[in-house]
Amino acid sequence: MAGLRIALAQMNPVVGDLRGNVDRALEMYASAVDLGADLVVFGELAICGYPPEDLLLKPRFVADIDAALRRFADGIGTCPAVIGTVTGTPGALLNSAAVVCDGSVVGVYDKRDLPNYAVFDERRYFRSGDAPLELFEVAGVRVAVSICEDMWGSIGPHADLAVGGAQVIVSINGSPYHHDKDTEREEMMAGRARELGCPVVYVNQVGGQDELVFDGGSFAVDATGVLVARSPLFIEDLRVVDIEVADDSGDASLPVVQVSGAKEAPRPTVTDPIAPAIDGDAELYEALVLGTRDYCRKNGFTDVVIGLSGGIDSTLVACVAVDALGADHVHGVAMPSRYSSDHSLSDAHLLAANLEVDIRTISIEPAFSAFESMLEESFTEREAGLTQENLQSRCRGQILMALSNEFGWMVLTTGNKSELAVGYFTIYGDSVGGYAVIKDLLKTRVYDLCRYVNARDARETVPVSVIDKPPSAELRPDQRDDQSLPPYDVLDQILAGYVERDMTTDELIEAGFDPDIVRRVTRLVDIAEYKRRQAPLGVRVTRKAFGRDRRVPITNAYR
Amino acid sequence: MAGLRIALAQMNPVVGDLRGNVDRALEMYASAVDLGADLVVFGELAICGYPPEDLLLKPRFVADIDAALRRFADGIGTCPAVIGTVTGTPGALLNSAAVVCDGSVVGVYDKRDLPNYAVFDERRYFRSGDAPLELFEVAGVRVAVSICEDMWGSIGPHADLAVGGAQVIVSINGSPYHHDKDTEREEMMAGRARELGCPVVYVNQVGGQDELVFDGGSFAVDATGVLVARSPLFIEDLRVVDIEVADDSGDASLPVVQVSGAKEAPRPTVTDPIAPAIDGDAELYEALVLGTRDYCRKNGFTDVVIGLSGGIDSTLVACVAVDALGADHVHGVAMPSRYSSDHSLSDAHLLAANLEVDIRTISIEPAFSAFESMLEESFTEREAGLTQENLQSRCRGQILMALSNEFGWMVLTTGNKSELAVGYFTIYGDSVGGYAVIKDLLKTRVYDLCRYVNARDARETVPVSVIDKPPSAELRPDQRDDQSLPPYDVLDQILAGYVERDMTTDELIEAGFDPDIVRRVTRLVDIAEYKRRQAPLGVRVTRKAFGRDRRVPITNAYR
Repeated sequence: MAGLRIALAQMNPVVGDLRGNVDRALEMYASAVDLGADLVVFGELAICGYPPEDLLLKPRFVADIDAALRRFADGIGTCPAVIGTVTGTPGALLNSAAVVCDGSVVGVYDKRDLPNYAVFDERRYFRSGDAPLELFEVAGVRVAVSICEDMWGSIGPHADLAVGGAQVIVSINGSPYHHDKDTEREEMMAGRARELGCPVVYVNQVGGQDELVFDGGSFAVDATGVLVARSPLFIEDLRVVDIEVADDSGDASLPVVQVSGAKEAPRPTVTDPIAPAIDGDAELYEALVLGTRDYCRKNGFTDVVIGLSGGIDSTLVACVAVDALGADHVHGVAMPSRYSSDHSLSDAHLLAANLEVDIRTISIEPAFSAFESMLEESFTEREAGLTQENLQSRCRGQILMALSNEFGWMVLTTGNKSELAVGYFTIYGDSVGGYAVIKDLLKTRVYDLCRYVNARDARETVPVSVIDKPPSAELRPDQRDDQSLPPYDVLDQILAGYVERDMTTDELIEAGFDPDIVRRVTRLVDIAEYKRRQAPLGVRVTRKAFGRDRRVPITNAYR
Repeated sequence: MAGLRIALAQMNPVVGDLRGNVDRALEMYASAVDLGADLVVFGELAICGYPPEDLLLKPRFVADIDAALRRFADGIGTCPAVIGTVTGTPGALLNSAAVVCDGSVVGVYDKRDLPNYAVFDERRYFRSGDAPLELFEVAGVRVAVSICEDMWGSIGPHADLAVGGAQVIVSINGSPYHHDKDTEREEMMAGRARELGCPVVYVNQVGGQDELVFDGGSFAVDATGVLVARSPLFIEDLRVVDIEVADDSGDASLPVVQVSGAKEAPRPTVTDPIAPAIDGDAELYEALVLGTRDYCRKNGFTDVVIGLSGGIDSTLVACVAVDALGADHVHGVAMPSRYSSDHSLSDAHLLAANLEVDIRTISIEPAFSAFESMLEESFTEREAGLTQENLQSRCRGQILMALSNEFGWMVLTTGNKSELAVGYFTIYGDSVGGYAVIKDLLKTRVYDLCRYVNARDARETVPVSVIDKPPSAELRPDQRDDQSLPPYDVLDQILAGYVERDMTTDELIEAGFDPDIVRRVTRLVDIAEYKRRQAPLGVRVTRKAFGRDRRVPITNAYR
């Protein structure tokens, strides 16, 4: 058996930071060379970060990517590297993998299957690659290069590459997270390896980029589909794996570019190439942590402020924030009103003590009363109602934003996906903020993750009373969520169908849900669209989040 | 010369309102038959409205479109109609034009060139049509059908259709407005007609749909490119035109579907088929009026509320609102503070009197003072600054939203494109609202349109002091916009380059702008992206508006 030592460079790029990304890639390259790598593999569009979106419409940005790739190539010695970049000319760009060796780009593979669904818009920017396929001989082994989507279909260039003589296929990826996607990827690629009889090395980027989290989880499978290496989820990682290649592979029918010769020097032994997996609630929680940490870090925020109501949502957000940024960088504010219960304030303070974050208390009463009197004349003979509830929520939003303005702390928004779906929040009130940590978690999932935190910590980090009390917005006396909404276990099932699985009102009724409840819930989802458009972005963790995933019109008469 | 009387049915559909759109189409069809039409032509996707966006991902929605098309066909007699609809199966949908006659769909043309740039995402939903081309014989004339983008390229199916025997080409469109686009379209299609030696009938939808305005402006050109019919901009319209067709066209090489025979009955004479054009400031202003009117109407709002500051922006928004909804449906609020000048309040009241809209005055002082005292402890030993300015703006936002909540009035947002670009607004403050009427107008354009209003009205509807005074946010003593920003004529030029023409900072400096000013402005544009994402949508009137047109990442280190 011949072998090839491949380094999986699971990098966390910053979109647009061409200099920083190349610097980081060259650091990882140097480490890989020290580990005796024959080939170093980076992620899709690693030079500019994925996804660069409309920056690609600036011709100068594309020229700057090209210059950055040349600077990267200048740092590459006799050990070759594969890195994602942009080639082509404005109006006819290609999403490419450059094969770089000895200071030069020696070959390029262009992505053929451009995803344009869900969160992806690649046909907005790129044309499909159509150059003839070729292989790259690295240390005596014929390597094929592929990019992300090109290997997701059962038919695709990979079959031609394998039949044409590839002894290993290297796939570079910018594959965003959703729950359990790492397992999907490993199973998919193990299947490809078996079909093709060829090992597959899969390298993904890691890190948060606006609403997307890239989970990393790079891996390699041998020609029988057995996992031989795996990077951990949610952190940068560099590891090498020795890929075994059958000696009797015969000649190649595809053209072969000679890239590098075999190394003679002794190399360090590879130990422990398979990182332990995480899944379930731990995986979901860590995705929230990384998304929050990277949004703050990459946008220059060190500290965040959170309105702590004593409720389950702000509690979970505070836990995530502490894990993302450290307790010293998280600031709590309790903002009671005449309708706040005693336990709300005490639960907020207990949580802050448990997490060791500072907390201040600012009653909203002076501002709320001021608004009531200012509006008295306009509202003559009208009863107190939703307007008064929204006023309270907006007074809280104002306080959070004032603290943010004054101290440079970013406000973390605490709304969950169930609330966001049915519009059970106040626009410019509890929805204010820079990042909405749990916006893609249905309410029932919020409870799961709070229980996870307590299990992980083996103590009641989340006060048990927070988990046990009935949810309430506390905007009027004795208010409870279930006065306005169906119970969350019912609501969340309807939302999963309507929002995440694109069912219609009629289909949900046909599926057996109560017709009145379905009609009310789906109508609420539709009319809340304008509010969601003005809500901050937050971590996407499901197959369909509110945001770039779900592009429904506000003006929409379909029922 | 043979002839064909074609009706241009320039309809204003509502996205998703399948029943309402078919009802309206059948009404227009009946009128066209009364006018002696041989063929009635509707717009692209007229059955469901354009663009339906992710509603198309719901298989049941697609099935419902199909049922709506059948209901439309049931209403069609011996005069055929061409109407835009969706065909195909989920995952492989087609953007189609159905040719309908005598209760049946007798032919279909599928769009081939799917736009996926600027505001368009058609490759997210549709596959390209690839069925063999065919012609439709209507009253003895061979008609070809085309859809929007298919006729924008100089090469495309239209050439094959003309060579293959078409005597007239009918193009159905969902072509959104930007300034002067109607002229572009007429020139483009006149050129096509001359190249092909074939008359072209171009039918566009009209109406507002979220941030898009469809301006209508349907028209017909003869085989020499001369305009023979034109619908007005910005309103529904039904008109017929007699298209002359050369007798010696010879035989067709493409298959011809027999649709309808020639009519024998006498028909009414066609008078005045060319509506007068509007352009320049009048065109721009009417686009704002239609966008605002349709957003309100299609979302169930009859009334709006506007914060009247006495400044140029809120003044223009109030003028547009009155033209869109009527003075009785527009409500003004003046919200002075300790920093407001006397002329602000008097100008706001004078404007309200001129427009005959009601105005109330609510001082923000009680709430502003309450917040100052509530935050005093947190802000010990810090100077008053941006935080206090934002607090004032947010107090005003709260009042507007409270009036909105209480009376069901939608808040119209008054920010312009220059402010929105550089972040010169308070998130959750002056940016609150449901629709941002002038968000795509640079500040210099706002002045132009105010002068237009006065010229149109032949009186000072816009008080001359509003036009003449230096712009100020009045959030601190003696504040003026030019203390924080470059003069608007310089700023707007830089923004036009950076935002609308995708130039980079380096390119703007190379173009001769002051390097320090360019760096400051482009940096401000970049860091305001998170605020713009939470701003309401508004009418797009340029080639690149903030919104679906310009998809830049928030997390973005490219300078």
